[in-house]
Amino acid sequence: MELIPVSIESEIACGADLAAIAVNACDLHDFDVLVVTQKVVSKAEGRVAALEDGDLDGFDALVAQETRRVLRRRGRLAITETHHGFVCANAGIDRSNTAPGTVTLLPSDPDRSARRIAARIRHLAGVKVAVIITDTFGRAWRRGVADVAIGAAGIRPIIDLRGTQDHSGRTLEVTEVCVADEIAAAADLVKPKAAGVPMVIVRGLPETFFGNGAAAEVVRPYPEDLFR
Amino acid sequence: MELIPVSIESEIACGADLAAIAVNACDLHDFDVLVVTQKVVSKAEGRVAALEDGDLDGFDALVAQETRRVLRRRGRLAITETHHGFVCANAGIDRSNTAPGTVTLLPSDPDRSARRIAARIRHLAGVKVAVIITDTFGRAWRRGVADVAIGAAGIRPIIDLRGTQDHSGRTLEVTEVCVADEIAAAADLVKPKAAGVPMVIVRGLPETFFGNGAAAEVVRPYPEDLFR
Repeated sequence: MELIPVSIESEIACGADLAAIAVNACDLHDFDVLVVTQKVVSKAEGRVAALEDGDLDGFDALVAQETRRVLRRRGRLAITETHHGFVCANAGIDRSNTAPGTVTLLPSDPDRSARRIAARIRHLAGVKVAVIITDTFGRAWRRGVADVAIGAAGIRPIIDLRGTQDHSGRTLEVTEVCVADEIAAAADLVKPKAAGVPMVIVRGLPETFFGNGAAAEVVRPYPEDLFR
Repeated sequence: MELIPVSIESEIACGADLAAIAVNACDLHDFDVLVVTQKVVSKAEGRVAALEDGDLDGFDALVAQETRRVLRRRGRLAITETHHGFVCANAGIDRSNTAPGTVTLLPSDPDRSARRIAARIRHLAGVKVAVIITDTFGRAWRRGVADVAIGAAGIRPIIDLRGTQDHSGRTLEVTEVCVADEIAAAADLVKPKAAGVPMVIVRGLPETFFGNGAAAEVVRPYPEDLFR
């Protein structure tokens, strides 16, 4: 498996055609996964809000607008559940790598965003790639953040190993692997945070990973969630 | 960045020299990360317990022995905090890919295990590699499991981006990235669960990732943990 960072020099504006930008910037093959950071998807879709540095009331109002429920609060940090069902800090509102006086909000429907990018790449370049849209989330119990999948198309986000057998012929206990999050995490390793690398190609994944799927499947439903 | 699975044909026995096995099985370079699954480390260190299929009382006793605290219970599933401070299902006790009538326990000190493997590889092959020992953990709020780092040597598990500047010259808000977990997740993608691939080489990471560090640093201390 190989990971190839895709540098994009130009700033992404509202209405930008991310598929065309990707096709011009790199050489995509069938069964590649194109990992795209939330930041550029939000900018291309106009999911940007005006917010001056230090406007704490404005920030709180934006977090409330983007939030279904607050799980925990500590000082200015709110651990929120977004309208998509994602649990993350401050509803995913982000100030880094944005124009001064603005923040990005998460895409309204990141799975739809991923489907559109994948379909348009197929139209433009004739290749069938999967697309994963990533954001950087904190985790319970473990320090540090890691990238996860918030949108996906053309890939099965969770691979069900139930029924497969282990090396010694027994049925495996560990059942469902969230490969979408593992791909998101892998891609982050080749993306220097400060630089203009909003996309990464992940090449060489098993063809069995590809198929219909959406990152919405990764959200754990309330009845089976022990921590919500 | 490139990920290379390392196939090991032989079963790992108690006392096995994992460093020698790795050196014989693959070509390691300076600044490679050798990712090793918990399963083979536990087997090599004799962290194996007898447990017949269906011995539920024996299983509960083992979980209790390996556990500092139970966070949640549902049926046979206990979400536990191990003596290392890791939060995972059933104290990481695992029945897959073990000899019949046995389970593996987590290594007593996985950071020490990683340091020993790294030092011995340096002795045997003259190369300076980092070592990450991984296990497969569930997560709060998100379906599916993903591999994380439970032991590390020669690599800084969390890269602090505080003070670095983003593309537009502002200081980044997202501060600490857990690259050890991202490397563990990445390596899992090239490890078919059923097959004998207990090690993965991760090649091409930035040299700034390498240095002193231990996976114990990833455990979030109680005072800053909102979910424990």
